[in-house]
Amino acid sequence: MSNDADRVEQAVQERRDLVNDAIADMLPIQRPERLYEASRYLLDAGGKRLRPAVLLLAAEAIEGVEPFAEDYRSFGDEDIDVMAAAVSIETIQSFTLIHDDIMDDDDVRRGVPAVHREYDLETAILAGDTLYSKAFECMLDTGAPADRTVRALDELATTCTRICEGQALDVEFEGRESVAPDEYIEMVEYKTAVLYAAAASIPAIVLGADDEVVEALCGYGLDVGRGFQIQDDLLDLTTPSDTLGKQRGSDLIEGKRTIISLHAREHGVNVDTLVPHERDAVTEDDIDAALDELDAAGSIEYAREMAQEYVDRGKNRLEILPDGEARRTLEAIADYLVEREY
Amino acid sequence: MSNDADRVEQAVQERRDLVNDAIADMLPIQRPERLYEASRYLLDAGGKRLRPAVLLLAAEAIEGVEPFAEDYRSFGDEDIDVMAAAVSIETIQSFTLIHDDIMDDDDVRRGVPAVHREYDLETAILAGDTLYSKAFECMLDTGAPADRTVRALDELATTCTRICEGQALDVEFEGRESVAPDEYIEMVEYKTAVLYAAAASIPAIVLGADDEVVEALCGYGLDVGRGFQIQDDLLDLTTPSDTLGKQRGSDLIEGKRTIISLHAREHGVNVDTLVPHERDAVTEDDIDAALDELDAAGSIEYAREMAQEYVDRGKNRLEILPDGEARRTLEAIADYLVEREY
Repeated sequence: MSNDADRVEQAVQERRDLVNDAIADMLPIQRPERLYEASRYLLDAGGKRLRPAVLLLAAEAIEGVEPFAEDYRSFGDEDIDVMAAAVSIETIQSFTLIHDDIMDDDDVRRGVPAVHREYDLETAILAGDTLYSKAFECMLDTGAPADRTVRALDELATTCTRICEGQALDVEFEGRESVAPDEYIEMVEYKTAVLYAAAASIPAIVLGADDEVVEALCGYGLDVGRGFQIQDDLLDLTTPSDTLGKQRGSDLIEGKRTIISLHAREHGVNVDTLVPHERDAVTEDDIDAALDELDAAGSIEYAREMAQEYVDRGKNRLEILPDGEARRTLEAIADYLVEREY
Repeated sequence: MSNDADRVEQAVQERRDLVNDAIADMLPIQRPERLYEASRYLLDAGGKRLRPAVLLLAAEAIEGVEPFAEDYRSFGDEDIDVMAAAVSIETIQSFTLIHDDIMDDDDVRRGVPAVHREYDLETAILAGDTLYSKAFECMLDTGAPADRTVRALDELATTCTRICEGQALDVEFEGRESVAPDEYIEMVEYKTAVLYAAAASIPAIVLGADDEVVEALCGYGLDVGRGFQIQDDLLDLTTPSDTLGKQRGSDLIEGKRTIISLHAREHGVNVDTLVPHERDAVTEDDIDAALDELDAAGSIEYAREMAQEYVDRGKNRLEILPDGEARRTLEAIADYLVEREY
């Protein structure tokens, strides 16, 4: 576990400064300044840059090169700017966060005020819209041959549509009596996993890899993204509040649907009464008792196994790539996502 | 005048049903239904489809064919789907209206409630975001060779960025002491004219026309768009309220900047005190007196001449195209925009 975590942390961190430099280069603060400052606000506030790291590592794994053997702005024999694609993906991620925070009326993101709080609603909508088109501009800037660029833009556009559909399904599910686990997984796929799929597969597209490689990396991203979200659902129940940075069991308290509660409901557990719905009234013992009941229903094991299955499948998909440091790090990222404790 | 108006009205109306059919085909109501219903709500509420008409007429003018001689979904020798490009442009237009109405907190659009009123804020943001990526998906669907598709997508992406910048400049100007006429025209260009430029030039791109044709049509769209907005500013002062569908002189009453008020301010008119700023306190005589003062300062003539210059320049740019019905209609659209009285 610690080996995977160390390897992942190091690989992501090593690439982070390069990604940040490219963001500053490709999304400069220009006129009208306030718009571009608002557009950059969340990007500059932090973020692990996990998706760009996946994209850059996938590029290295596809070409079978050692880490940092190639310049990301002029990568491989054809001098492809894979970093432009990485910035594009991170820009989409940032746009969705800005608009999501408005929709959920969240006040804080990455330890700073949400963009619509720091600026205003109008500027936040517009900042998101600006990042949206800038992401397409970045993806147009890889220098790849036109046929590959078209395919990369197609992947980007359909990914953005899926993310919107996933967000809409999430809203729809909140108002519904029952949601089947399959529907939940589909929502997770749309809302979260497709952007990992784009991050992993677009370097294969712009580098001109075989279709099987593109599909394998797309599948890796989908599986890893699904596993990531299920693990998030588990951690909400099992990780101490101090480590989690928020109240343990929030999903249960807020009545939020997760793969665990959906399984439990299907197996006769009255999920709605597991814990009090007022945050102040909930004790650690309440959460522990709820966890015991979910465990007894097999829901914890069900989620764990599902997350592990996705991660294993995702890792297996990488076998099509040359063995090496980059591929091993992509495997470690998959393992890390289900092994992490917060 | 009436000849132009008739020709334009007929040309736009003849193409409207085909555009609407293509919208229904390319943006079907699918799961999640509520999201797609909200995305289609404003598109289905009406709209002249002026920009798609410009795009389709430009395609006909470029190829030098008679109106409706070719199927728009399989146009010219190479069977290009120019209608997909037309739907893309209208989809962008609709996305900007949905988000603009949220930003301006407007209640009504095209005679129906704004999307964030008919649905809710969350759904309206998401509907706009969905149309945004759908517009790129449509532009990927023309069947043009990859190099032209890349160029069309580049034009679309930079157009979207410009529209956001124009909206941000508009907001910025509202809070500023003084705005130079040049700055105002630049804002109009970004916010309004670039989408006409995209509508006029993208058919040339996807049909593989020479660069000079692409540039001429881009210039036509920019000029026509600028002229259109200046004429709108004039009509706000000169057209009777009944015909205008809103209070004559609204821009003055609301203290909104227009090319007329900016010119007047530069020529010593105290624009802020021209009319009372409470709508109920304003009489027709107040507006007439203000109009006289603006006229005496030369501001009305200045705006009229500027609009006419843009329109003439726009029309002249079309000389690169083969003479024929489609080109004459594009010329008539330019004339119509400054001749219209509402």
